[in-house]
Amino acid sequence: MSHLIGFDADDTLWHNETIFARVHERYRALLAGHHDTATVNRTLLATEKRNLELYGYGVKGYTLSAIETAIELTDNRIGAAEIRELIALGQEMLAHPVDLLDGVAETLARLADKHRLVVITKGDLRDQHRKVEKSGLKAHFQAVEVVSEKDEATYAALLKRHGVRPEHFLMVGNSVKSDILPVLALGGACVHVPYHLQWELDHAEAPPAAAGRFFPVKDIRAVPEVVAEWMSAQSDQR
Amino acid sequence: MSHLIGFDADDTLWHNETIFARVHERYRALLAGHHDTATVNRTLLATEKRNLELYGYGVKGYTLSAIETAIELTDNRIGAAEIRELIALGQEMLAHPVDLLDGVAETLARLADKHRLVVITKGDLRDQHRKVEKSGLKAHFQAVEVVSEKDEATYAALLKRHGVRPEHFLMVGNSVKSDILPVLALGGACVHVPYHLQWELDHAEAPPAAAGRFFPVKDIRAVPEVVAEWMSAQSDQR
Repeated sequence: MSHLIGFDADDTLWHNETIFARVHERYRALLAGHHDTATVNRTLLATEKRNLELYGYGVKGYTLSAIETAIELTDNRIGAAEIRELIALGQEMLAHPVDLLDGVAETLARLADKHRLVVITKGDLRDQHRKVEKSGLKAHFQAVEVVSEKDEATYAALLKRHGVRPEHFLMVGNSVKSDILPVLALGGACVHVPYHLQWELDHAEAPPAAAGRFFPVKDIRAVPEVVAEWMSAQSDQR
Repeated sequence: MSHLIGFDADDTLWHNETIFARVHERYRALLAGHHDTATVNRTLLATEKRNLELYGYGVKGYTLSAIETAIELTDNRIGAAEIRELIALGQEMLAHPVDLLDGVAETLARLADKHRLVVITKGDLRDQHRKVEKSGLKAHFQAVEVVSEKDEATYAALLKRHGVRPEHFLMVGNSVKSDILPVLALGGACVHVPYHLQWELDHAEAPPAAAGRFFPVKDIRAVPEVVAEWMSAQSDQR
């Protein structure tokens, strides 16, 4: 039987948005003499959105968009030393230790005993691989898939490559838009484990009802039980 | 029989260093009032080297390193408008049309008829996928593998994933360091098709002699003949 369980990485296995939020705090402080918080937020988000097609996801693209926005918001008056600080902030994020979410280490160890697990994540290629290395979780995963977009086509290609039918795939993640909706659309199952922060560009409305295939939980420690339930429902159907 | 032929992308399938070289020309012009060419080249290369571990390969990392170097070389005197120009140069590179090397289109079409082909490339995830899309070559490839380093471990993992033994793998590329040496070390075969420019960080000495496994050619159009020779030598051994 070739079931596969996919795990999102940032904000599902380890903290990420909290690091971004702290950096963004310092970013706003840097621009506080020029613009109010709302303007800084709105302009940066617009720059990130505009650049997404070229840059994709991740820290390097964020840093470039943050510099571009700072120049725009200060009408070219921001100093080179301050831009150097923005570059340093980006490098700090890339060098940041990996801080696992509660319950992740023991839950993954339990699941890896019985199931094939893979990481499926967006972001900078090297950064995401490095975080998996640093996390101490790498041995639990059969593969680490860094993808440039988490849409139906990406999941379909990935499942084909792993020789898994969509109905034998279960995805665990914090993002309704990236981890839940495309997988449900393909016929797979999902466990939604929300994180307390979310990047605005990753926002989506709640998913449609999908009985037996959509499992909202509060804590990753609930995943093994959900997996057992999902698999036993599948064997009942046979 | 499960043979696999890997193709490097930048400077093997399409022009890349020529675009970098033109951008670097404009970069040096921007800093010409502050430092001579040799100093600019040396300092930028040192910054890229220092940041490689954090940034990995690709245009976004190059752009960030170019900004960092410009700030350093001007002692914080470079203006925000000039930094904005550097960001625009990076975006231009990402949006640049894909310009195939001579002979690539017909050679790939010929090979794809009979063999399993994959792209194996470093760089920014989204950028590399976009270039494959734009190239018009995508249908020839079974997979596009963007990796964060082209070393023995990466090739070994990739071959395992594709179910291919090293002795059934042949890699085609312009970089001795990335496309030839690690593949020879694993026991695979290689075709070296040099490009007239090379990034300094991708430099390596000529490979060791590896009879029957290392094929230097001048033009990608020679690859089908090399592949035929390599495969017939393999069946002779059986």
